[in-house]
Amino acid sequence: MSVSTVAAEKSVCSPLPVLGTEVTVPLVTGGEITYAALDYAASAPALKRVWDDVAAYAPYYGSVHRGAGHLSRLSTELFEDSRRTVAEFLDCRGDDEVIFTRSTTDSLNLLARALPAGCQVFVFETEHHAALLPWRHARVTVLDAPRTPRQAVRTLEAALAARDPHGPALVCVTGASNVTGELWPVKELAAAAHAHGARIVLDAAQLAPHRPVSVRDLDVDWVAFSGHKLYAPFGAGVLAGRADWLHEAEPYLAGGGASRAVAQRADGGVDVQWHESEARHEAGSPNVIGAYAIASACRALTEAGFEALVAREQHLIRTVREGLAGIPGVRILSLFGDDAPRVGVISFVAAGWNSSHLAAALSAEYGIGVRDGLFCAHPLLRVLLGGDAQSQGGCGTADAAVRVSFGAGTPDEHVERFVRAVRELVESGAKWRYRTENGRCVPVAG
Amino acid sequence: MSVSTVAAEKSVCSPLPVLGTEVTVPLVTGGEITYAALDYAASAPALKRVWDDVAAYAPYYGSVHRGAGHLSRLSTELFEDSRRTVAEFLDCRGDDEVIFTRSTTDSLNLLARALPAGCQVFVFETEHHAALLPWRHARVTVLDAPRTPRQAVRTLEAALAARDPHGPALVCVTGASNVTGELWPVKELAAAAHAHGARIVLDAAQLAPHRPVSVRDLDVDWVAFSGHKLYAPFGAGVLAGRADWLHEAEPYLAGGGASRAVAQRADGGVDVQWHESEARHEAGSPNVIGAYAIASACRALTEAGFEALVAREQHLIRTVREGLAGIPGVRILSLFGDDAPRVGVISFVAAGWNSSHLAAALSAEYGIGVRDGLFCAHPLLRVLLGGDAQSQGGCGTADAAVRVSFGAGTPDEHVERFVRAVRELVESGAKWRYRTENGRCVPVAG
Repeated sequence: MSVSTVAAEKSVCSPLPVLGTEVTVPLVTGGEITYAALDYAASAPALKRVWDDVAAYAPYYGSVHRGAGHLSRLSTELFEDSRRTVAEFLDCRGDDEVIFTRSTTDSLNLLARALPAGCQVFVFETEHHAALLPWRHARVTVLDAPRTPRQAVRTLEAALAARDPHGPALVCVTGASNVTGELWPVKELAAAAHAHGARIVLDAAQLAPHRPVSVRDLDVDWVAFSGHKLYAPFGAGVLAGRADWLHEAEPYLAGGGASRAVAQRADGGVDVQWHESEARHEAGSPNVIGAYAIASACRALTEAGFEALVAREQHLIRTVREGLAGIPGVRILSLFGDDAPRVGVISFVAAGWNSSHLAAALSAEYGIGVRDGLFCAHPLLRVLLGGDAQSQGGCGTADAAVRVSFGAGTPDEHVERFVRAVRELVESGAKWRYRTENGRCVPVAG
Repeated sequence: MSVSTVAAEKSVCSPLPVLGTEVTVPLVTGGEITYAALDYAASAPALKRVWDDVAAYAPYYGSVHRGAGHLSRLSTELFEDSRRTVAEFLDCRGDDEVIFTRSTTDSLNLLARALPAGCQVFVFETEHHAALLPWRHARVTVLDAPRTPRQAVRTLEAALAARDPHGPALVCVTGASNVTGELWPVKELAAAAHAHGARIVLDAAQLAPHRPVSVRDLDVDWVAFSGHKLYAPFGAGVLAGRADWLHEAEPYLAGGGASRAVAQRADGGVDVQWHESEARHEAGSPNVIGAYAIASACRALTEAGFEALVAREQHLIRTVREGLAGIPGVRILSLFGDDAPRVGVISFVAAGWNSSHLAAALSAEYGIGVRDGLFCAHPLLRVLLGGDAQSQGGCGTADAAVRVSFGAGTPDEHVERFVRAVRELVESGAKWRYRTENGRCVPVAG
């Protein structure tokens, strides 16, 4: 569905209940205000449903895969059920594996350690560092930032056509940019990868909280995401997909759980038989609370329905984009242009403002939490900012942007307050004075 | 203090409140009973205090190190405060680092990846697989099981004396065995390591929940432990200790948070500047709930006082050991003998019983959760079991043991019920019939 159709619908559902909606924070100008959490792209608040599920389970917590007692068996079932729930949420193939990691970063590092010998890796310079950097020990080709989705596909095709066609290859691509929120043409990139004998892993950290992800439909080989961006901030993440490379690789962590049998050899060494299942890469006691929280979030999002969630989010996106577009000197950062489909992640710069200054004023004077900086995507920010060095006024870091991001728990009031706040700050200036402390912009004490 | 002195005191404190004390489980023989969680060595229940702290914080959850908003700043402070709390709990040196990992297994794998080139590693065959296996890429010397603490020191000294004295070396040793509960002579082993120019890492997974750990007093270079064994089961663990090897090593995970600056080179590659602090090995969004939970547990244990906790635990240990010693055919597994100091982890075999059968009956007929098997310490179990193959009767795995383990939340009734149950089962047999299903022993359906 196109963005305009969705945004025009207006039959938007209510936000899903999340923790923290009652939290108030002090304003430097006096009084208090409910906190507007608009940094979902970094970490989203827990869904109330997720918290309630975790709280209901917590007294029944027991060792997973390791005990004979009732609660150990219950916890083991819950953990393995959570694996199945995630597989359904991602519409995995029947023989895919779902490995619980600690985050997207961890998932992609796990896959990087499982690459076959001689594997070539192709990655756009526009990726988050978690997707850009784990491939250090492979032959990496970093592709220039495309300016259209179509150019992305053509760039990848050209690079793959020029590769050594005999060895294994992997493409790593984001589903939705953590800076622009723009959707990448994952299905087309997957087709291009497969046409050239390469595999593809989808970084769905910013996609999975906002859109349905179907491994089958997109035809990606692996997908990675994080619980803490999916309303389940309990230290777990996911790598799901094809088992073969994972089974052939050395265990990610060496230890109990990954080892089936260990024996000391006569020569003083040890012989180890490793598992050939998810357990191979899940050594140590599994984080059952983290896994169960992710499964709970998957169920909650599925039941709420992505159609309604997307409709609501597109309404919020339109409020922010149209609001920012009407403020003089504000420029929204974009690779693919105004018409590109996107999720609720929007970065921008304001002429005359350092990003740290603007973000500090949004927090101190309006109770709004956003992020400023380079968003762990330094090469992309250099492309997007170009000559727009933000060193004109205020304190803080130059050459950076402000990012506002939101999702299923965000009420209209938060984004409306945000647009009004940016307008007031840009048009009238901050009401308070700020100074730089440890490289960050903070209000001068009252 | 000696074991007998402590056990004789009798002025034991109450158990610390933990989650799950009200949970009842069905008995196969009819009715229900409160669950006796006696598998603390695998995963301990959450302290109620830890849960309450997590619940109070959850609405204030925000992105760590990444946002400008009030809750991001609060969460960042909480995370860094948690680091300081753990450093105090471990009595770290001023320049030690505290890195939040996901478990002891993860911590030791991180250290294994940070070893200098050519590092020799010395480890006893008696270690948990998490301490035995991560050193795959180093030159590993596996030392034979000692039968006294003194022999452990002599064995290590002999091995170190015979090593190439010019390269770096690391000794990895447990503080308390996850099978026998016996304390290892860590301070003496550390002195031996240092005398021979080696460093030492302490696996405190089973020690930290039961005894105070002082990095300074023991003079160990690193210590590792897990939150889920320390009453804080939220997916986090700790590696604490010397910074130099860690700063010189490649980042454990490549990604955001670990990278200070990333730039694309003209030749298409990327240049990365990595942090030289804890952040270097903590890429990805930190698990702030997990870290805060560990800090909360550290505070709770410190405030309860280890003197009182140890006194109470020694009372429970005596109840179990004296109880089991009076049951015909039961043999407690031990490396160091009856007089060795120990924590609340006790493994045993019963003549005529497969361990899986006994553990299943303890669960199904008495509501007691223990663990059976080889406890991720296969070489040690082979040493301890010797010719004691448990293949005589019942279903389940032969050549294994039953482990009962407990801690700060265990009421007297649980260990008293356990001793009575083992006595009844051994003397009178199981009341129910059991069969093998997927390699495990389960009650035959009613």
